[in-house]
Order: sequence, then C-alpha cells, then structure tokens
Amino acid sequence: MKELDFIKIIKNQIGGDYIGSDCAYLKDLGIVVSQDNLVEDIHFKMEWCTPEQLGYKSMAVNISDILAAGAKPAYVTVALSLPSDISDDFIKSFYSGAKKALYGAKIVGGDITGSKDKIFVSITAIGTIKGRKIASRCNAKPGYKIITRGEYGQSSKGLEELINNGDNIELVRAHLEPKLDIEFSEYISTHIDTDYAMMDTSDGLADALYKIAEESSVSINAKYIDGMFGAEDYNLIAAVPDNFVIDLDNCILVGEVVEKQNYVLKIKDKEYKNYDELNLYDHFGGDDE
Amino acid sequence: MKELDFIKIIKNQIGGDYIGSDCAYLKDLGIVVSQDNLVEDIHFKMEWCTPEQLGYKSMAVNISDILAAGAKPAYVTVALSLPSDISDDFIKSFYSGAKKALYGAKIVGGDITGSKDKIFVSITAIGTIKGRKIASRCNAKPGYKIITRGEYGQSSKGLEELINNGDNIELVRAHLEPKLDIEFSEYISTHIDTDYAMMDTSDGLADALYKIAEESSVSINAKYIDGMFGAEDYNLIAAVPDNFVIDLDNCILVGEVVEKQNYVLKIKDKEYKNYDELNLYDHFGGDDE
Repeated sequence: MKELDFIKIIKNQIGGDYIGSDCAYLKDLGIVVSQDNLVEDIHFKMEWCTPEQLGYKSMAVNISDILAAGAKPAYVTVALSLPSDISDDFIKSFYSGAKKALYGAKIVGGDITGSKDKIFVSITAIGTIKGRKIASRCNAKPGYKIITRGEYGQSSKGLEELINNGDNIELVRAHLEPKLDIEFSEYISTHIDTDYAMMDTSDGLADALYKIAEESSVSINAKYIDGMFGAEDYNLIAAVPDNFVIDLDNCILVGEVVEKQNYVLKIKDKEYKNYDELNLYDHFGGDDE
Repeated sequence: MKELDFIKIIKNQIGGDYIGSDCAYLKDLGIVVSQDNLVEDIHFKMEWCTPEQLGYKSMAVNISDILAAGAKPAYVTVALSLPSDISDDFIKSFYSGAKKALYGAKIVGGDITGSKDKIFVSITAIGTIKGRKIASRCNAKPGYKIITRGEYGQSSKGLEELINNGDNIELVRAHLEPKLDIEFSEYISTHIDTDYAMMDTSDGLADALYKIAEESSVSINAKYIDGMFGAEDYNLIAAVPDNFVIDLDNCILVGEVVEKQNYVLKIKDKEYKNYDELNLYDHFGGDDE
C-alpha cells in the first residue's frame, strides 16, 4: 500500500509522533489540526457531483477527522486551485455546500489559485479540546469494547450507482453528502475519563478496526457486518472500557479488544495478519475514490 | 484581477472579517493560521527546481505569511498530492528541503494522496501570538513611516535566468530558496505597542504598498526602488509610527502614509488609482509563477 509506505518515509524524514494519525494533537495550543487534499479524478469526478456536493464532501471529510479525535470543530481554512475556465457560480456553489458540513466550525481563510486542468481542494480543520478527552488510535486496551453507530455500505452502493449511471438518489447522497455523527463524538469525549481510541470509518469499518488494533499493539475480534469493507461511510467507531455506558440510541457493539494475537484483526472466523489481506482500495491506486 | 474577484465572491458567501488577509487571526486560540496551495506548472515547474527546492519554497511561502503577521512560527501541516510515478526519493528530498524553511516551526501532520498528473502542495502554518503584537494590513495610519529590509528584484531576475536557461546560480537561488527575515518580524512584533501594518513582498514591493494603502483606507507616497515591481522577493514591509525606533541593521525607509488622496499609491511622481495600473501578474493568468 503505497500511501502507508510514503507515510513511513515521511516519518523517517521529520521524526515526531504526530505523523500518521488523522489529526495532530497540539496540547500546548489546546487544539487538534487536520488537513486533507481532494484531487479531481482521484477523489471525485465532476460528472458525478455538483459543485455544492463537492464543497459539502470536502468539508465533511475534514470535519470528520476532528470528530474522530473527540474535539469540537472550531475553524477551517479552505484552499482551492482551479482551472482558468471555472465560473463564479462554481465557487459560490462550492462554498454553499461547504458551509453545510461545518458542524459548528467557521471558515476563516485559505487560498485561491489557478490550476492547469484539475480541481484541487485542500482543507485544514482546527478543533478545540477544552472540556474533552482527546482520542488516539493507539489507545485501545485489552478488555475494551468497540462500538459504532450508523449504517454501513450505503456509500459504496452510492458509488456503484454513480459508476453505473444508476438513479437511486438516496444511495448517491449517502456517498456524496455523508452525515457526520457529531453526537457520538461529543458524547464520548465529554463523558469518558480514561484513554480511548476513536476513528472514522472513511476507509471502511474493517480498515478502522485493523488500524486501531495495529496502532494499539492489540488484536481485535469483530463481528461480520454487511458493508464493513466498503469505504466512505463517515461513521465513527470507538474502543472504550467495557464498563463505559453510552447513553445514545442505536449504538451497536462490533467487537472486543484482546491481547495481541498472531493476527491483528479477526472478523467472525477469518484472521487478518497484514493490512493487504483486507483488499481495500489504495488512495494512490484506484480510479474509484 | 480574477483572484481578487474570487475573493470577493468568497467573502460574500461566508461573511466574516478573516478572509482576504494572509493569515486568519484566531485570538481565542492565541494563534494565526495561513494556508497556501502550490500547483505544478502554475507556481513551479519541475524542470526548474529540485524536489528539495520545491520543498523549501513551499514551506517558505507559508512561513512568510506567519512572519508577516508578526507571529512566531509554531506548527505546520503538509499535504501532498502526487502522480503515481513519483519516487520515494522525491518525497525524501521534498521534506529535506521543507525542513530548511521551518524557521522554528514543527511539521506535525498533513496528508499524502495521489494526483492525476500534476503535483499539488498545500501547506498550513500556525503561528503563536504570545508576547507579540499582531499586524494587520489595514492598520496603517497617516503619519506612519514604511520600512523594509533586504534586496529587491533578485528573485525575478532568477526567474528570468530559469526561463532563458541562464546559469547565474545565485539569482536562481534567490528565486527558489528565498531567505525569510524572521528577525525583522520578531523585532517589530515584540517591541511595538501600537497598531501597525506588515506584509511580505511576495507579489512585489509595489503590490504590498498598494494593498496596505487600500486596506487601511489611506494613501502611500513611496520612493522608487529598483526591482519593486518584481514578485517573489520574500522581504517584509511594515507601516509603523514615525517615532518607532527600529534597532536593526540595513532597514530602509520606503515611504510614508498620508491621508487618503485621489490615488492609492504614489511612487515618485506616478500616481496609481487602481490595482491594475501596477501591471503585476495574476495568479490565475500568467504562466510564469
């Protein structure tokens, strides 16, 4: 998986514990920071979405990282690089969509430049940590339970609709306008007093389980859930102490954390010992997303 | 100027006082934030620079915005989108160059994704404001003097060298590896106790003078300085009270702020009433930078 290889090179180059997570946790400033790029024809196609949907989703993927850290969305900067034939209306619509996915954050700046032929979006989101316990992928401990909420597989079905020119608008919207579970993030980060792990499932539920297990040096035994290998569902999963009570509707238990085994992740009876066995897409490889 | 038109649309769409400056000033968090995109064949050409120089310059243009605000460079995130044929060495060299332009900041995260065929770089820099007075472009007042430091015109001469396959390495380095004047930024922001304006001269000294005058609703009378219309010199200019003493070597006085006249900027005897008269390049138009 080329993306992970590159992250290793970067870690070697700059050192530090910050790299590789969705957010950098800057304790001295009381914030977490996340930045994501979206590139035309790699992460989105303009034949498949309106400028407003592009704005919505670009913002949502960033705010999702803030929620995954358990922080409160506070500020974002938006940097757009656009081919010279782009219209004023595109920009208006993009921002109109982006505003709908702010979840309380404020747009405070950014950049706008030209681009040769592809649209390039980069958003940086800042979340505040006051009154919250911040999550980390490496905080799962044996005995913890893993919980989530929301539907799985809708987004990848929506992508199928787009690829096949289908007309199920609801599925397409699940893909292009994912709703974020700010309530889940806020509830856990403001009620928990122990270390815990949290992640979004943007690369798939199976991916999130695997990464939490690996980065926490534990193993996870999970249930099989329909749609768990599909990407782009922006739900959250959390690994929390077994006795932590989550007083929210519709939470489900998807697995439990155990001492490190000779596998990283077990889904029903199938053991996964390395990441590639999950057969997920690579941000560098596929032409889907 | 398309860039300024787009900024107007964005301001209308999202409101707020933050948009249009180089940095967003987030007082409640004690930080300023700046984000810039650099796009291959718009802002740089790989025939003209090494990956290390690209890393250096990408970082420098962002840190320069932090210095222009009078803040202390603290953290940066780096988001790269790269064509699939990019090598590991490219990434190593890019980061090696980027590290040389940190001016005290730490790289704490970012993103790495694929791109169809062009390289996209987006960097977000965070500066801290503790112990400093933060500058704004709109703080120049009649009676203020305008000071700067450093050479002008070297960078655009370096660009000429690149365009014409010249071999003056020193000029080329002035263009590709601009040195930032952290001392000037730090001195003023830690010694001044009144409002003041500061900007970098990345779009030219004439551009910076014009923008400060316009955004402060004043006029500026400036000297003619060789190289003042060339872009990409990363010096700083500041508009400070006439009696503010700057105990730094090589500072020069470039102009004075006066009550608003029927021109925005006067350079020697030539009056500029609107921005286009400066005949500077447009980030959306030109194919140079």
